[in-house]
Amino acid sequence: MLTMIFYVAVTVEAMTAALAAGRRKMDWFGVCVLACVTALGGGSARDIILGHYPLSWVENPYLLVLSCGAALLTIAIARIVHRLRWPFLLLDALGLVVFSIIGCNVGMAMGVHPVIVIVAGMLTGIVGGILRDVLCNDIPLVFSGELYATVSALTGALYYAGLELGWPHDLVIAGAVVVGFSLRVTAIMMKWEMPKFVYDKDLR
Amino acid sequence: MLTMIFYVAVTVEAMTAALAAGRRKMDWFGVCVLACVTALGGGSARDIILGHYPLSWVENPYLLVLSCGAALLTIAIARIVHRLRWPFLLLDALGLVVFSIIGCNVGMAMGVHPVIVIVAGMLTGIVGGILRDVLCNDIPLVFSGELYATVSALTGALYYAGLELGWPHDLVIAGAVVVGFSLRVTAIMMKWEMPKFVYDKDLR
Amino acid sequence: MLTMIFYVAVTVEAMTAALAAGRRKMDWFGVCVLACVTALGGGSARDIILGHYPLSWVENPYLLVLSCGAALLTIAIARIVHRLRWPFLLLDALGLVVFSIIGCNVGMAMGVHPVIVIVAGMLTGIVGGILRDVLCNDIPLVFSGELYATVSALTGALYYAGLELGWPHDLVIAGAVVVGFSLRVTAIMMKWEMPKFVYDKDLR
Repeated sequence: MLTMIFYVAVTVEAMTAALAAGRRKMDWFGVCVLACVTALGGGSARDIILGHYPLSWVENPYLLVLSCGAALLTIAIARIVHRLRWPFLLLDALGLVVFSIIGCNVGMAMGVHPVIVIVAGMLTGIVGGILRDVLCNDIPLVFSGELYATVSALTGALYYAGLELGWPHDLVIAGAVVVGFSLRVTAIMMKWEMPKFVYDKDLR
Repeated sequence: MLTMIFYVAVTVEAMTAALAAGRRKMDWFGVCVLACVTALGGGSARDIILGHYPLSWVENPYLLVLSCGAALLTIAIARIVHRLRWPFLLLDALGLVVFSIIGCNVGMAMGVHPVIVIVAGMLTGIVGGILRDVLCNDIPLVFSGELYATVSALTGALYYAGLELGWPHDLVIAGAVVVGFSLRVTAIMMKWEMPKFVYDKDLR
Repeated sequence: MLTMIFYVAVTVEAMTAALAAGRRKMDWFGVCVLACVTALGGGSARDIILGHYPLSWVENPYLLVLSCGAALLTIAIARIVHRLRWPFLLLDALGLVVFSIIGCNVGMAMGVHPVIVIVAGMLTGIVGGILRDVLCNDIPLVFSGELYATVSALTGALYYAGLELGWPHDLVIAGAVVVGFSLRVTAIMMKWEMPKFVYDKDLR
């Protein structure tokens, strides 16, 4: 189940990246690269930072094929994509939550500190989007978005706490997914945001 | 032979990076850093992603000296460099092809999946330029250039296929270099490009 | 002693990053991420490049807590921070020097080539600032700043040379810190800069 949602999440991340690439008039190759980096970059960053080799897509190259396929499909259906705003947002929210849980899982399997477990989940959930924005020459959206990273951290914390308390794995996953997903969707609908820090003096 | 072309390629990549740095009015140190990142960043990204330690320039620091030397030389001869457009483009095309073959070699030595062998070649060939453009605050050129990445992928595929078919190593290298180099140069002359994906609606 | 200065340096780097984030109107989460990346990114880059696992903050997650705490403190005292220009600059200079020495130490413990020892110090000292600037969509300041990287390289070279000559460790550290720190502060006061490379022709 989690694996299936993972593939859906990779597909959705790749498609949003393809749209970002299209807004910058990249060529088809650039679209595919940006899709792969966005969909698989979070997990790669986590694995490189934790020293967890081989990377998932190196072991399972079909993840690259899936990302490129999703990107090319996006090009094909670009005319109707703008009607899909809500499906995209919902699947993206689901992907964020699932990526976070998968990242926490890798951290726990490596026996790292609980703080690092949560960070592993957050890296998996949000680094892909950061890389996409850096390559598109934007300031990363996640630094000012609707609780995006907060949802990732909260989902990871719930998941970790549930397992530590000895609750059944399936139940913990379901609970973390439902809470994280609901919070993210509510945040989008209500335009909830973290408070911003605005500073306009210069030290230098 | 391949080793010699490799050094030429490192030198050329470092020189093109130095020119990019000069266009942004960087200081001499920045010029050297950008040269090293551009010339050696592709191989480093490949090695970090595959977990292939030590990195080539950590093992052989003279690559750093070579890159910095090439960068400083570029500063010295900047007045005449603009007359060298074609030599630069030809050497850069040669470098792309050779970097790709070297990257595939590393992948094959590590026994990874064929798709990852080609990706290892592409990482080696194109990540340096991507890092250069990100540090210069540009959208990476490779995402919209004249078959740059396509040439890298094709060269790697030919190289891999030739070796798998049991053809002699030297012949396979020569064949891949000739085909990749010719395609790249033709693409520059004919202004061949990958089709672009242009999308100007916004999902959010 | 070095450890205490290291914590001070992490704190200061995190605070300067928080101010940069505030100038881009990031939310509190973005402020914390940028603080962690800036304060710990240099050491992380060094460890990933050298294959030196686990990363310091993965082993000691309190470094993340310290960075986030420093970032949130900066938000709280933002009104008076602009009066703290000189304390910031002095602590930042101290941090640069200490980061460089710590990075060289890691390199020497791994037995790498002397050139790589110095590079390990430079990575530790300057990559955090580069990542901060890339995430803020700026051309990295270090590529045109007042001897920033030169100070890092010189400090590392002094440290390495002193130890190679068999001088007492404490004396070598003190000497390298004093020379590096003085040079950096003098460079800021006198506005010393590396010569710039300005090139405005285009090859393509």
